[in-house]
Amino acid sequence: MRLLGTLNKFGKLLNYTLWRDFPKRSMACSRFEYVKSFELDDSILPNVWIVIRIDGKKFHKFSKAHDFEKPNDENALNVMNAAATAVMQEFRDIVLAYGQSDEYSFVFRKETAAFKRRAAKLLTYVTSLFSSSYVMQWPKWMQLPLAYAPCFDGRVVLYPSEQNLKDYLSWRQADVHVNNLYNTAFWKLVLEKGLTNQQAEAKLRGTFSADKNELLFQEFGINYNNLPAMYRKGTILLRKRVILGEKSRQAVVPLHEDLISSQFWKKHTEILGKYVPGTYNAPQTLPRLVEMQLNAKQLDDEAEEPRNLADTS
Amino acid sequence: MRLLGTLNKFGKLLNYTLWRDFPKRSMACSRFEYVKSFELDDSILPNVWIVIRIDGKKFHKFSKAHDFEKPNDENALNVMNAAATAVMQEFRDIVLAYGQSDEYSFVFRKETAAFKRRAAKLLTYVTSLFSSSYVMQWPKWMQLPLAYAPCFDGRVVLYPSEQNLKDYLSWRQADVHVNNLYNTAFWKLVLEKGLTNQQAEAKLRGTFSADKNELLFQEFGINYNNLPAMYRKGTILLRKRVILGEKSRQAVVPLHEDLISSQFWKKHTEILGKYVPGTYNAPQTLPRLVEMQLNAKQLDDEAEEPRNLADTS
Amino acid sequence: MRLLGTLNKFGKLLNYTLWRDFPKRSMACSRFEYVKSFELDDSILPNVWIVIRIDGKKFHKFSKAHDFEKPNDENALNVMNAAATAVMQEFRDIVLAYGQSDEYSFVFRKETAAFKRRAAKLLTYVTSLFSSSYVMQWPKWMQLPLAYAPCFDGRVVLYPSEQNLKDYLSWRQADVHVNNLYNTAFWKLVLEKGLTNQQAEAKLRGTFSADKNELLFQEFGINYNNLPAMYRKGTILLRKRVILGEKSRQAVVPLHEDLISSQFWKKHTEILGKYVPGTYNAPQTLPRLVEMQLNAKQLDDEAEEPRNLADTS
Amino acid sequence: MRLLGTLNKFGKLLNYTLWRDFPKRSMACSRFEYVKSFELDDSILPNVWIVIRIDGKKFHKFSKAHDFEKPNDENALNVMNAAATAVMQEFRDIVLAYGQSDEYSFVFRKETAAFKRRAAKLLTYVTSLFSSSYVMQWPKWMQLPLAYAPCFDGRVVLYPSEQNLKDYLSWRQADVHVNNLYNTAFWKLVLEKGLTNQQAEAKLRGTFSADKNELLFQEFGINYNNLPAMYRKGTILLRKRVILGEKSRQAVVPLHEDLISSQFWKKHTEILGKYVPGTYNAPQTLPRLVEMQLNAKQLDDEAEEPRNLADTS
Repeated sequence: MRLLGTLNKFGKLLNYTLWRDFPKRSMACSRFEYVKSFELDDSILPNVWIVIRIDGKKFHKFSKAHDFEKPNDENALNVMNAAATAVMQEFRDIVLAYGQSDEYSFVFRKETAAFKRRAAKLLTYVTSLFSSSYVMQWPKWMQLPLAYAPCFDGRVVLYPSEQNLKDYLSWRQADVHVNNLYNTAFWKLVLEKGLTNQQAEAKLRGTFSADKNELLFQEFGINYNNLPAMYRKGTILLRKRVILGEKSRQAVVPLHEDLISSQFWKKHTEILGKYVPGTYNAPQTLPRLVEMQLNAKQLDDEAEEPRNLADTS
Repeated sequence: MRLLGTLNKFGKLLNYTLWRDFPKRSMACSRFEYVKSFELDDSILPNVWIVIRIDGKKFHKFSKAHDFEKPNDENALNVMNAAATAVMQEFRDIVLAYGQSDEYSFVFRKETAAFKRRAAKLLTYVTSLFSSSYVMQWPKWMQLPLAYAPCFDGRVVLYPSEQNLKDYLSWRQADVHVNNLYNTAFWKLVLEKGLTNQQAEAKLRGTFSADKNELLFQEFGINYNNLPAMYRKGTILLRKRVILGEKSRQAVVPLHEDLISSQFWKKHTEILGKYVPGTYNAPQTLPRLVEMQLNAKQLDDEAEEPRNLADTS
Repeated sequence: MRLLGTLNKFGKLLNYTLWRDFPKRSMACSRFEYVKSFELDDSILPNVWIVIRIDGKKFHKFSKAHDFEKPNDENALNVMNAAATAVMQEFRDIVLAYGQSDEYSFVFRKETAAFKRRAAKLLTYVTSLFSSSYVMQWPKWMQLPLAYAPCFDGRVVLYPSEQNLKDYLSWRQADVHVNNLYNTAFWKLVLEKGLTNQQAEAKLRGTFSADKNELLFQEFGINYNNLPAMYRKGTILLRKRVILGEKSRQAVVPLHEDLISSQFWKKHTEILGKYVPGTYNAPQTLPRLVEMQLNAKQLDDEAEEPRNLADTS
Repeated sequence: MRLLGTLNKFGKLLNYTLWRDFPKRSMACSRFEYVKSFELDDSILPNVWIVIRIDGKKFHKFSKAHDFEKPNDENALNVMNAAATAVMQEFRDIVLAYGQSDEYSFVFRKETAAFKRRAAKLLTYVTSLFSSSYVMQWPKWMQLPLAYAPCFDGRVVLYPSEQNLKDYLSWRQADVHVNNLYNTAFWKLVLEKGLTNQQAEAKLRGTFSADKNELLFQEFGINYNNLPAMYRKGTILLRKRVILGEKSRQAVVPLHEDLISSQFWKKHTEILGKYVPGTYNAPQTLPRLVEMQLNAKQLDDEAEEPRNLADTS
């Protein structure tokens, strides 16, 4: 009745025999090797969306130390985007990444078996590669050299349903909107009207979105909706086919669309459905982020080894 | 009888009242904010040693791509040591770090309350800062530029007793010994005797430590025990007082001692006992790793803000 | 920017003040109370189906000690069903229970907030009440007294999608089919043909379902599909409205239907959809399990307190 | 270098081959069997004390429904003790149990490998056997029949050091003291002085232990320290050798000692040290709890099978 048990015993017997022939050189470790048993399994439940969100540690101080433009530093945001792109190129099971300010969220497809779904592996590979890539990308976008090593924390959050996942991303995009509208008004008051930080804060306290829109328009002649979409909507990274004349190449492309609307999900069906990248609707000039990939790709194409590193070694 | 329950309810009421005054600008997120409840608590059991081990991803390939010297590349090891030093400077509750090859272990003191002992926070901060520091440190030690961003995985392992912790570190140090003796012999056979990898492997298969020692001595005139201690023992990082003439400064110093012996633990009582750094027994010329810290320190001393970033923000 | 942090600090201050007024009688515990912090949070991810499966410990021995009829003991199965019914009456967020042999699975609705979704609470309440109810129910169904206390293990398994949940239940029902067909043939051979256990096992080894069906028909004149549905399909417990003349009452009713087919899920839409119990399609004579509830209910109706104990006390 | 990987692959191959010969009867389940992969590992960290505490659900109501004597019902406490004794007899790796009021804590020795240290297994076996034993033991001690099935929750708490474990048990024993002194005074005021519950509560509010001792002595002529030790100290269950004339037998014996004092731990060295039961210092008349075991043992001794069920089946 308990055939499985018998098989397991047989399996152990086999293992035992195999281990006896194990090379002598590992024997020296054996007295201490029991400590390995303190490593516990942290596999993630199957069939849920795995989101890894990384977040800059003390980036308020970091942005001051590197003279970031206020309220948004386009180049600094692009360092974030470029680091996230490197992560997506390495881990093919990430179907979408979403970034804003000093944070980035990476969404692994529900069925991913990468690293046997071990939480710490997924979490640290993403966080590590993002961190090292951030430093690598820095000089390609920024004038000032890096004053010290940046640091990011990361967390794993699981979402069982598509609706949960969409709501998670909407939560992050709504956060951009709220913060950016506030920050835009705040810095206008400080930088152009000469208010102190405290005065600007006091002026904005208790105001609604409509009030801040009005203030920007009346006092600074700014239509908030005309500000760059990257500042207002954050950056969505998707894998897309980029059409280049007669040929096409796959690349990670930045979008600054409204993902709270259902339109977004109808347009980019590959995120939730069968995983076939759609075509990139490129603007007139390719974003530098994409251009850099296409240039690097040409080099890669000549290399022998395929660039799929998401195995479990 | 259930006073605690009553207090909690009162607490909730207070919270509720406070939230009502929360600025309007966060209200926009509320429809989606439920997704935050999917983040689960991952606090670590109190009163256990927290070890975080990071490990290079595909470093076999990485070492080839950057022409590492075989079997040991002193400079590449120092990049690891320097990155680990940066981690120890940032997180003061790390009492010891131990590195060898492409891995590093960080030991947090048993009582640490850093980041409320949240596993993912501790794990990712260490892994992230190590990764970004590795890239920052690279040009200070290496000739070739970094060809691509390195990546490390990290894991958290808990050890309840001092003996477990010592055995863990002994396990890693025994691992260096076994691997380095093998690799030293292997590369001597390949690089100096012209054997192919397969031939060298075949020659060493089934040999004991004594055999390999003998082979190194007989065929290459090498006394294994005279090879650099860093290669044979790995690197132990401790926080010590460095005596500089009349003054003393604290720094993270590299040791290459035998931590399997009980001597080591008697000598460096601060690791397991009260946490007061001992005095550094410096070699005649200070290691560059220490020198770099002392130079950087002088700059820091002029800065206004203390450099203890291990808070929970 | 970090208003939440400020609020938390304020909250802590308030808590602190409150605690100072905490009655003196608990002060005596304070030196030791730190041990409470070793209890870690085990909340379950929101929006997943929570299945708790309990399983008899050493029930092979238990069934021998109590002379269970082979291959199925109707009364012993009814003790299981009655104990599971008691669990469903107590925990209203269980939408379905499924039992076979010495195991029972309880399905909590996806949205349940019972016991704040704490895994150990849910797991132990179900296992404990099942165990004590089993002993309470025993004399109502069995002739022999209980020789010793039965013991059940329990586990929590989470299923993110409806399909996963249906497949889980199908897995358990397919298991009944396979085991019961085998056991029916096995015990016929042993009890009626006088084969030894070994001989019966040998005769059945390697046979397919069709073979065993044929054997039962040819050698024993048995049409397997005419055997009692409870033996072939296990028991599904659902909450239904039982029509009693002009009135109706709610009760937990046993069904022995094929839940692998899509028909089942169309018929009992309340399981996955809005949670409104359907009407019980009672057989001519009410099962004793239902009758017992209706009798008990009449007593309850006169009692003052509602019987919903699934709160968090 | 990665021999383990190779071995694993070989192991998989072997498993694969073995599975192909797996009896056909399990094939029917295969389409659904993937759901088994949703069961996650919950092994407990090695080398920590495992404490399982069970706690009665709504026992305030339960004690009313069964007319428990106030403030302590000796027989009801003995049902708890007897149920806990059954648990200790079954699971030999429990070195100590401690009970008071409607709760019981079970301490597994640090090194236990029972059920591979799987948390849910340990937790539910203890909770289940306690619950069913409670019902089995009830009629042996109580006059009134059980009105309904009792229910207990259970939790697992881990303690890394001996001090932590002692402090945990001290916390529970200090809790008895505080509660029992209060309850003794409370019920004296209600039952003998005719105060209402509210009046008694008001009278005791803000009093210290000394005040309550004084009140008991002055108003009721009671020396609190002369009350039965079981009420004041709770019940400690240990495995001891019981001397019976020339022979000795092992049994689980109830003690009502002060475990907060270091004396206790010096006297019962087997708890923390080598696990060899000491000798029972029996009172003049053996407690019925022990007597019942000795009688049952005689029956068991004639049975063929040893009574160690703590294996992993």
